[in-house]
Amino acid sequence: MKTSISLEEAQATLLTLVRPVAQGQVPLLAATGRVLGRDIQSGVNLPVFSKSPLDGYALQAKDSEQAKPSQPVTLTVIEEVRAGYVPRNKVMAGTAIKVMTGAPVPEGADEIVKFEDVTREGNSIKLFSPVTPGKNVIRAGEDVIQGETIAPGGMVVTPPLVGLLAAIGVAAVPVFEKVRIAILSTGDELLDPSRDLLPGKIYNSNLHSLGAYCLQLGTAPVDMGIVPDETTAIAARISQALQASDLVITTGGVSVGDYDVVPAALTQLGAELIFWKLDMKPGSPVIAASYNNKLIIGLSGNPAAALITFDLLVVPLIKKMMGLEKQFPLKVSAILTENFNKSSQQRRFLRARVQRDKAMNYVKLTGEQSNGVLKSMIDCNALIDVPAGSGPLLAGQEVSAVVLGHEPGGFL
Amino acid sequence: MKTSISLEEAQATLLTLVRPVAQGQVPLLAATGRVLGRDIQSGVNLPVFSKSPLDGYALQAKDSEQAKPSQPVTLTVIEEVRAGYVPRNKVMAGTAIKVMTGAPVPEGADEIVKFEDVTREGNSIKLFSPVTPGKNVIRAGEDVIQGETIAPGGMVVTPPLVGLLAAIGVAAVPVFEKVRIAILSTGDELLDPSRDLLPGKIYNSNLHSLGAYCLQLGTAPVDMGIVPDETTAIAARISQALQASDLVITTGGVSVGDYDVVPAALTQLGAELIFWKLDMKPGSPVIAASYNNKLIIGLSGNPAAALITFDLLVVPLIKKMMGLEKQFPLKVSAILTENFNKSSQQRRFLRARVQRDKAMNYVKLTGEQSNGVLKSMIDCNALIDVPAGSGPLLAGQEVSAVVLGHEPGGFL
Repeated sequence: MKTSISLEEAQATLLTLVRPVAQGQVPLLAATGRVLGRDIQSGVNLPVFSKSPLDGYALQAKDSEQAKPSQPVTLTVIEEVRAGYVPRNKVMAGTAIKVMTGAPVPEGADEIVKFEDVTREGNSIKLFSPVTPGKNVIRAGEDVIQGETIAPGGMVVTPPLVGLLAAIGVAAVPVFEKVRIAILSTGDELLDPSRDLLPGKIYNSNLHSLGAYCLQLGTAPVDMGIVPDETTAIAARISQALQASDLVITTGGVSVGDYDVVPAALTQLGAELIFWKLDMKPGSPVIAASYNNKLIIGLSGNPAAALITFDLLVVPLIKKMMGLEKQFPLKVSAILTENFNKSSQQRRFLRARVQRDKAMNYVKLTGEQSNGVLKSMIDCNALIDVPAGSGPLLAGQEVSAVVLGHEPGGFL
Repeated sequence: MKTSISLEEAQATLLTLVRPVAQGQVPLLAATGRVLGRDIQSGVNLPVFSKSPLDGYALQAKDSEQAKPSQPVTLTVIEEVRAGYVPRNKVMAGTAIKVMTGAPVPEGADEIVKFEDVTREGNSIKLFSPVTPGKNVIRAGEDVIQGETIAPGGMVVTPPLVGLLAAIGVAAVPVFEKVRIAILSTGDELLDPSRDLLPGKIYNSNLHSLGAYCLQLGTAPVDMGIVPDETTAIAARISQALQASDLVITTGGVSVGDYDVVPAALTQLGAELIFWKLDMKPGSPVIAASYNNKLIIGLSGNPAAALITFDLLVVPLIKKMMGLEKQFPLKVSAILTENFNKSSQQRRFLRARVQRDKAMNYVKLTGEQSNGVLKSMIDCNALIDVPAGSGPLLAGQEVSAVVLGHEPGGFL
């Protein structure tokens, strides 16, 4: 087992060990936000038939060639067709069919002239100028040609895509199943926030923050609860979690103290340990193991450290399991707008907020950076990546930042 | 009733007519992505008690004042405390209590010294240098002070906020209820995509694309189905929709043709017509009405026009109803990277994709711009706002664009 490896080595190692989950079919609306399982080819032309974009008269353009204001051409209106109905007649020389918006273009007709551009008297219309064939016609296949790929597998199903799928008659959408992510928190000190607080105890936040993050990603969190600091109990709960999920996340018990029991539980379970500890702050105490081709990732019990390692290390794995094509967060350069007075012996990620101002990205810290502090995560939309061996950071300096996905709409 | 008003006048008029919906309480995980109903003040300090950030010994710093490598100070270890438990003893001069990460700082102690920085023999430890009081202590209230506002009403509940709410013991979160949005599509030509296609018919996409958009926004779409082009049937269905929802959206039947029956249905219902038609392309045929303090907005039946007017006109109303503070989309300037050869007599919104390249926004069109064409909505993350009276647009020209919210993560 490797120890104290870089984030990038950890990511690369774990990414080779996960695969997209299985696929299924869901109804159109339920596909919203899900990941498309495969390329979708259209089985039809869209529109299926040529149709009228306006309320008017379908005619043969050549009939209008001689039309002038002083010498109008007269056509006989032989039928009227609304959207949703099929013309019974063909348009032949000297005739026209009244069509409403969306009605099929009748056979024989090659142009639709607007109501406003003709005069109607009884069963006939008068044309006062020539019309261009095909100008006012929505042609079959204008939007999508039969056989055309309308969306690639791995794409998130957006509302317009739901519309396009509906339009080509796809009522059941092939999507990747929801990735099931079991989350369990270890620690004798932990209480669920629904309970009364007791001396020496704290409310567990990790189950909830990570569960919420899983929901936001479009996965299915499986709440495996709180387990006391006992190796056998943790091993048993991890074993249950493996049954119930595609990926197991634990929090707490991964440092090197007397009661850091998750590594011991993984060993007892017979899981293969992959690495222990990342060379970064916060979130250094991470352990990764695999059991029957499923990963178990043990994160720090410190709330901010747990969220940050989840963001940096676990989210790319989850995105691969979800079937998403794009797994890594955006990295940007930004101008730091305040000092950070500590040196960084070890690589360090600082909670921060990036904002664009016209041509430039600016980034400020979002408050206290201690491992346990959650408040500075609230406004955080990015993590400044401070290389090992850096001195204090100065306002005005250019820094590198990883953009996070907590906030709907991203950073704008 | 006004006609052919500007988008901005329509927005301003309708925004005065909607209010945020009622509030309720939901469990922590279910609050993810919902809108916080009110400011949340913490009822506790966070952490609740001062605690140890590491595995070490709690002591009185003044005991260490004389400690040197050549003359270590010896302290007696009188107890051991793990996270989750409460010390039974006080630390007094000459004593220390072994504490594990997360354990409360025992009374009388003002500093924790790391395991690695002392030597232990039997029941005593040796200190080799002075320690600084308070350096290795996580102080009660360091993250959040009792009474502090941790999040403002109107904020979207993000995963870190779920964590912070859990940490302060909030198990039921006050959020705005889900806005219920009834959607119905009118048109004799429409079939649901689950049906077999028939001659002259088309698959209805608007119910599905708008429903998906409602889901993505975090609202509850109410599917009111397809109604034929009959005034009485439409009036009856709108009446049912009003019962079942906070806002009613219809598609189709809002132009000025013989069969544009939605305005007639609204009149028959006794709804107050607010305006008809917007001075823009696409999506000009929009009608807005109110009935018993609920809005009914009739959008074009053209799939792209329906989505675009939903985006520009309806989404800000929905965001106000959701309780969100920020209701309007971002507007950006961008350099057009291709020509658009048509002149625009009327204000026009073009489907486009904005991308940032370092200092600059660039925008390209996403394909065919006809009212009915859905394909160009798929890659669309912005609408170029072309003012009335514009000539053709040229590559290299600066244009204004409204950024849309279809895509998770926004435009990056």
